[in-house]
Amino acid sequence: MIRHIVLLRWTAESTPELHQAVLDELRALPAAIPAIARYRLGTDLGLAEGNASLSVIADFASVADYETYRDHPEHQRVIAERIKPILAAR
Amino acid sequence: MIRHIVLLRWTAESTPELHQAVLDELRALPAAIPAIARYRLGTDLGLAEGNASLSVIADFASVADYETYRDHPEHQRVIAERIKPILAAR
Repeated sequence: MIRHIVLLRWTAESTPELHQAVLDELRALPAAIPAIARYRLGTDLGLAEGNASLSVIADFASVADYETYRDHPEHQRVIAERIKPILAAR
Repeated sequence: MIRHIVLLRWTAESTPELHQAVLDELRALPAAIPAIARYRLGTDLGLAEGNASLSVIADFASVADYETYRDHPEHQRVIAERIKPILAAR
């Protein structure tokens, strides 16, 4: 099993609506990309300063499945349209 | 349930022996800290440049349990003695 973990932090000026749009569009990815075995999104609880805003834990049966997800046009679209505009740190 | 996720990257000059020492000492934490509900460590598969060296996914039943872990002397010792000396990025 391949586990891919990403932590993202949003810019200070980004809005809750923009954060929610990322969540909504990422949540739709498993239906669009069967290579994803398991997909879990988490949002920051605000327990400490400087923590990431969003966590993604994505599981795959193989490296090939991970690469299918990584390069999938719908995933790339969410990154380009929704994530990059509000990304402070990855 | 509280999930705490940390991604750490080691310095280029750190050795496999030092990386293994971190793993060994972190793996011993659940036995020393009953507040930890579930503790999973992952090491980088080397699929992409710049990814983290080590992932820690720690689950807790409550914020208080997370804080017990965060502040536990044995956890703080591993951070100070094993992790900080080879830490490039957190």
